[in-house]
Amino acid sequence: MSVVAAKGFRAAGVWAAIKGSGKPDLTLIVSDYPASAAGVFSANRFRGTDVELDVARLRATGGRARAIVATSGYANTLTGAGGRRDALAIGRAAARMLKIPEREMLVSSTGAIGYRLPVPRVIRGLRKAVRSLAATKEAGAAAARGIMTTDTHPKLAEAKFADGGSVFTVGGIAKGVGMVAPSMATILVYLTTDARIAPPVLRRALVEACADTLNAITVDGQMSTNDTAIILANGAAARRPLSAAGVRRFTAALHEVCAALAHSLVADGEGATRLIRVTVTGARTAREAALAARSVADSALVKTMFYGRQANWGRIAQALGASGARFDPLEVRVRVGGFPAIRGGCLVKPRFELFSRLAESEVPVEIDLGAGRGRASVLTCDLTERYVRINAGYLS
Amino acid sequence: MSVVAAKGFRAAGVWAAIKGSGKPDLTLIVSDYPASAAGVFSANRFRGTDVELDVARLRATGGRARAIVATSGYANTLTGAGGRRDALAIGRAAARMLKIPEREMLVSSTGAIGYRLPVPRVIRGLRKAVRSLAATKEAGAAAARGIMTTDTHPKLAEAKFADGGSVFTVGGIAKGVGMVAPSMATILVYLTTDARIAPPVLRRALVEACADTLNAITVDGQMSTNDTAIILANGAAARRPLSAAGVRRFTAALHEVCAALAHSLVADGEGATRLIRVTVTGARTAREAALAARSVADSALVKTMFYGRQANWGRIAQALGASGARFDPLEVRVRVGGFPAIRGGCLVKPRFELFSRLAESEVPVEIDLGAGRGRASVLTCDLTERYVRINAGYLS
Repeated sequence: MSVVAAKGFRAAGVWAAIKGSGKPDLTLIVSDYPASAAGVFSANRFRGTDVELDVARLRATGGRARAIVATSGYANTLTGAGGRRDALAIGRAAARMLKIPEREMLVSSTGAIGYRLPVPRVIRGLRKAVRSLAATKEAGAAAARGIMTTDTHPKLAEAKFADGGSVFTVGGIAKGVGMVAPSMATILVYLTTDARIAPPVLRRALVEACADTLNAITVDGQMSTNDTAIILANGAAARRPLSAAGVRRFTAALHEVCAALAHSLVADGEGATRLIRVTVTGARTAREAALAARSVADSALVKTMFYGRQANWGRIAQALGASGARFDPLEVRVRVGGFPAIRGGCLVKPRFELFSRLAESEVPVEIDLGAGRGRASVLTCDLTERYVRINAGYLS
Repeated sequence: MSVVAAKGFRAAGVWAAIKGSGKPDLTLIVSDYPASAAGVFSANRFRGTDVELDVARLRATGGRARAIVATSGYANTLTGAGGRRDALAIGRAAARMLKIPEREMLVSSTGAIGYRLPVPRVIRGLRKAVRSLAATKEAGAAAARGIMTTDTHPKLAEAKFADGGSVFTVGGIAKGVGMVAPSMATILVYLTTDARIAPPVLRRALVEACADTLNAITVDGQMSTNDTAIILANGAAARRPLSAAGVRRFTAALHEVCAALAHSLVADGEGATRLIRVTVTGARTAREAALAARSVADSALVKTMFYGRQANWGRIAQALGASGARFDPLEVRVRVGGFPAIRGGCLVKPRFELFSRLAESEVPVEIDLGAGRGRASVLTCDLTERYVRINAGYLS
């Protein structure tokens, strides 16, 4: 599992004293060989300094990177020119220690917005991380821990695929349990593979793999300023590029890893007690399907309903009707937990068996708008008092 | 105060046993004279049966109505053809008892979606209400109570204006503390005036008065299926129509009443401990100003921040950046409680005095996007554990 499952990668997660807790707060991921790189980033207009830097570097190199340093504690966003200098200083120090070109060093951070990073401590932490770099399971797990904020456990995933007689690995780590919404979130995701893949192919595969996984989850409908998913592909398992079929298998493996990470992100959503998978079919367009699915998945009333294990299906109707998707209410069919909920413009009286289904850890909500062929799916979680307490600062 | 402050109106609020609580759950408002009428209603695609009926009746009569019956307990939404029959039966019974044309009888309901109204009980309650009809302060207060759901107190307002030597009154009642968002909400608002105003003029005034009041509030971003604001104008204070200046003064008085009701709706927002007035200026367009203001006002992270009296201004930046409004982050200025919060792409370190300001009952958030002349304002409340408990059913 983790980012060291693929050959030719080492990682570390250490405590750099950015946070007072003594828990890992700095992650370093390094490819032993030159690597292709691709990223998808937050679409927020207030983007993090690090996000801007990574976007510029990936553009300048045409999609090459050797290493990523990620810190947890402060987001380096709303920090002005000083924050920009901090990001450059951290990247430069890391590149020197690793003896790689500065522009192939990517930088990420997550945490509170508006405060400067403690650069001297980050650089001391970096030295410690460089000394701890390893390809062991422990190092991979430590790397997953170093990016955690309010996450309750590290998130790791791995998949394998074969091409031309070689076996390749895709591995990844992720964090992010609040400020999570479609168009990424305060999600940081780092992925590695030992296949050899040209940057444009890598980028297409990443965008495709994220579309219905990392870009189709929501905890609180809040798009972060720092969302980042980066993949490095170093070709350590075989020097020749993947075949066309190999690229398809790679994309499938990458999708599997992204889906697993997306699932664990929502399952660990701040305060969440259960997952809700909202699937919309029969929309006039894919865009309207996404509008409808997100409106339901982000509805505070729907989310509290699932927390309370109630069958107030009217709240689903309300969220659908307010979504902007066009449909005839009489044609809409909704099933919750496999049981009919809304049909023919009427609520279907809940059956007794439904309530034990609502107590399960994952509840499907299937919506057929009966208006076309558009479809979309969003994974969300319930809304609990604990989410409020975490975000009101009463638990920090 | 209330809907009986204007001359020629009587009202009642009684317990019809729709709810088990013994609290008033049926409100009747009657004009003693023929009256002009206008309404604004939910834009939800799943609209309540009663909403559809009222829209059709106001269209059929060209804006005439004599009375309104409103019940609390069930929304008569997602109830199909049976629900339609129920609404017609209730309207017909009320019209007969009041000896008014059936199509001048308006019907509203609010409460749980998907369940049929107990029509025989509603009709028995109607008889009781007709017997209790009065123009007294007590009757006005009872009418305000009869529409309450999770509201903790009744909401009433009144304003006066003069024209051509006569003094006129505008009075109103409202309910709605959850499922409240711009484009109305589970808001029911009934307004009366003793001025004589032609239906088209009345409708324009109502739309104008709602725009930055009842249509600019949010509790949980959830647009209800049953939102209704209806005004009756019966000319009981003077037979001649208002002058042009009188119409302006009427619109101002109506605006005052709608603003007062909007304020009390949000102040009583489910679980709310304080109000937040989000004002956006300097947007490229009024539409983008509204997008930005609503994105901040509906952000779970902003709302929990105010609950916790924290100064995490990054959450405001995050909500602005995700809103779809176009601006240069470096030009954005945000003030919270009168203190600078974001400026020049940087967070402004909070001053000690700010924190006592955050503890007050209403906190202004002033945002200048520095991109144009569009402006908008939204009134919202904080998000607390109590909102979650109410909507998870743990308090009902």
